Amino acid sequence: MSDLSIYEKQHFGQKLGFGRKSALLIIDLQEGFAKPDILGGYNIGQAIDNTAQLLKVARECGIAVGHVRFGTEAAGEDIGTFAIKVPALKALSPSSPDAQFVASVRPVEGEYVSLKRHGSAFFGTNFASWLSFRGVDTLFITGCTTSGCVRASTVDASAHGLRPMVVTDCVGDRAQAPHEANLFDMEQKYADLVSLQEAIAHFRSVKQSA
Amino acid sequence: MSDLSIYEKQHFGQKLGFGRKSALLIIDLQEGFAKPDILGGYNIGQAIDNTAQLLKVARECGIAVGHVRFGTEAAGEDIGTFAIKVPALKALSPSSPDAQFVASVRPVEGEYVSLKRHGSAFFGTNFASWLSFRGVDTLFITGCTTSGCVRASTVDASAHGLRPMVVTDCVGDRAQAPHEANLFDMEQKYADLVSLQEAIAHFRSVKQSA
Amino acid sequence: MSDLSIYEKQHFGQKLGFGRKSALLIIDLQEGFAKPDILGGYNIGQAIDNTAQLLKVARECGIAVGHVRFGTEAAGEDIGTFAIKVPALKALSPSSPDAQFVASVRPVEGEYVSLKRHGSAFFGTNFASWLSFRGVDTLFITGCTTSGCVRASTVDASAHGLRPMVVTDCVGDRAQAPHEANLFDMEQKYADLVSLQEAIAHFRSVKQSA
Amino acid sequence: MSDLSIYEKQHFGQKLGFGRKSALLIIDLQEGFAKPDILGGYNIGQAIDNTAQLLKVARECGIAVGHVRFGTEAAGEDIGTFAIKVPALKALSPSSPDAQFVASVRPVEGEYVSLKRHGSAFFGTNFASWLSFRGVDTLFITGCTTSGCVRASTVDASAHGLRPMVVTDCVGDRAQAPHEANLFDMEQKYADLVSLQEAIAHFRSVKQSA
Repeated sequence: MSDLSIYEKQHFGQKLGFGRKSALLIIDLQEGFAKPDILGGYNIGQAIDNTAQLLKVARECGIAVGHVRFGTEAAGEDIGTFAIKVPALKALSPSSPDAQFVASVRPVEGEYVSLKRHGSAFFGTNFASWLSFRGVDTLFITGCTTSGCVRASTVDASAHGLRPMVVTDCVGDRAQAPHEANLFDMEQKYADLVSLQEAIAHFRSVKQSA
Repeated sequence: MSDLSIYEKQHFGQKLGFGRKSALLIIDLQEGFAKPDILGGYNIGQAIDNTAQLLKVARECGIAVGHVRFGTEAAGEDIGTFAIKVPALKALSPSSPDAQFVASVRPVEGEYVSLKRHGSAFFGTNFASWLSFRGVDTLFITGCTTSGCVRASTVDASAHGLRPMVVTDCVGDRAQAPHEANLFDMEQKYADLVSLQEAIAHFRSVKQSA
Repeated sequence: MSDLSIYEKQHFGQKLGFGRKSALLIIDLQEGFAKPDILGGYNIGQAIDNTAQLLKVARECGIAVGHVRFGTEAAGEDIGTFAIKVPALKALSPSSPDAQFVASVRPVEGEYVSLKRHGSAFFGTNFASWLSFRGVDTLFITGCTTSGCVRASTVDASAHGLRPMVVTDCVGDRAQAPHEANLFDMEQKYADLVSLQEAIAHFRSVKQSA
Repeated sequence: MSDLSIYEKQHFGQKLGFGRKSALLIIDLQEGFAKPDILGGYNIGQAIDNTAQLLKVARECGIAVGHVRFGTEAAGEDIGTFAIKVPALKALSPSSPDAQFVASVRPVEGEYVSLKRHGSAFFGTNFASWLSFRGVDTLFITGCTTSGCVRASTVDASAHGLRPMVVTDCVGDRAQAPHEANLFDMEQKYADLVSLQEAIAHFRSVKQSA
């Protein structure tokens, strides 16, 4: 990995820091992504447990929470080439058991919920509008997979003008190499990487100051 | 990399194949990305030479061509957190020498040209509209960097309903590991990988049938 | 209205004509928009009856059909300032009776269906991707209201590179003056106006040639 | 216009009020829109003069300012069906005299500037990202034309979660009837209408409290 030193020489990977107001985004923590024989694997189980912890703290501290999940309402007919590339997605109709949120991270009333049909939580949703209306500028990102919907959402969060904070303990992938490669890319170009403990500490500090 | 076998077990990475009508996209082949002391490095030089070849064939065959380049019109004030994360971008004002297209891949009249302020060629541009108006459904993607704007554009191309074809010989990065990791992700989830020779052959076959 | 002659002098309102491939869009024909004491009025009932006729022909002729309906999943919390401006919208939770499609224009399997949270059928949906994937370039627009979601969708259809065809007999508003003023604007700048009979004739001609 | 009473009965047109932080948007005040023989007419000249006044106050009060202008870089090839509907737009290449900002409302360094290729200031630009990064939630809208780009931008501002404030003295159209009809629609569904004096007073009050 010595060739990566060029990123440092070119001053990539500067720290963004926290902004004015935070929100928590939970991506695709659905039954089908919790099962290694469907779309899960590697460290997604651990990401779910850690996200459940962070969600609890977010609610205690009054942090706005957004949940997105993947679904195709027409057996893949409405998701374009994604259904050709990854045919397993066609099983996730919105009402199917595997498309439901995992029990430990289910939304409660007053939280943002949206179905999405592609990788990014921002594409084909009004999630950016919801954040803008609330004055959120700092987005803590959790869920799965690191190399798929988490990466796509993080790139879009940056493009939408937000400070993306990828919570490393709360994102997971079906395999280790893409997980790590995407954490590297996101930190170099779009996001800060923060641990579960740092995210919890920030949420608590915000509550104290509220 | 043995853990990557889970992608195959879950049937990721199916082939999209070519569609009805193709276009060629060239991303960020600007002077500043050709220089290793600014934003270049590793195999970007080779990507430029190969893209110049492909561009020549595209023009001979009547394939529509789109060019995007990165620029910030206000020294980073208009690109949000991207300027904090990657301060080197602030040097690329649209009129600066380093923001100009490399000579061998300059646009000619009648081709689509757009400035962009983020990673994806689709974000903050009307590139998707231009493709849709022309009935393009298959997008050959070239330029740099593989782990940055090429990846972001490929994810968005998929979300916009297109068949993204990443031309492996025509995309480059400042370092090898992110280049390869992102080719893996793109092939598994969003795009077909095609060689320069395959792209050239397809453009010629389309011309013959026209 | 004599001052409107300036539009003609400046050559506004040229004819777009039909393109390569058509689709039919039906906007917000939901129970709540059929009732004058909720969000309906004036000629919306007639627009529903005419759209039901056109939908029948579209299905016979193999024209792709997209349905969108308005809904707020959080009693207005997820639609930003729209809920402040038009508080009646807050009643339309996706599962409420008034948010359901009117019986005569209900989607059938294989048709595109999406919930939307704002005016335009394109905003916060992947409707443009669905059209692009199918190669559609000509969009027949029906539903309600002419001065609200029909207008917003027509402006966006133009921006997305499509040929918008507003079917005058199939769009309705709660009041006549905004209905007519918006038909004028749409014809001058974004869309062709076509009658129900012209739309039916075009769908049938397409089928004959298929 | 007695049928418009239904809007009141259905509780349309509630007041949004000002939010946390304001910005000023100036739309298409370009030479070509100042000339009645090109794309101008009716009250656009007055809108320019009034906007110049408001711009001066905005700068004194530290209100963020965004400027957008229409341009087609390829003689209409890059704006899709808009160039067919309104062929006069094809004259506005970015470097042509008629595409330049009118002298009295020219941007200064540090202000947001973007070229756009469609009606809305948000479509194919990163304007929403720029607002979000700055925490702006209230957008004062000026420029032309009321029935075209002002209307399209106002609808999108609402969809992006913002509080649109249409400054009635600062927006203009080439004809009176569409000007008035669109002010009605915007006030009923998306925006508050404010006078030049109210906008000035708000900018000054914000400065005093800063």
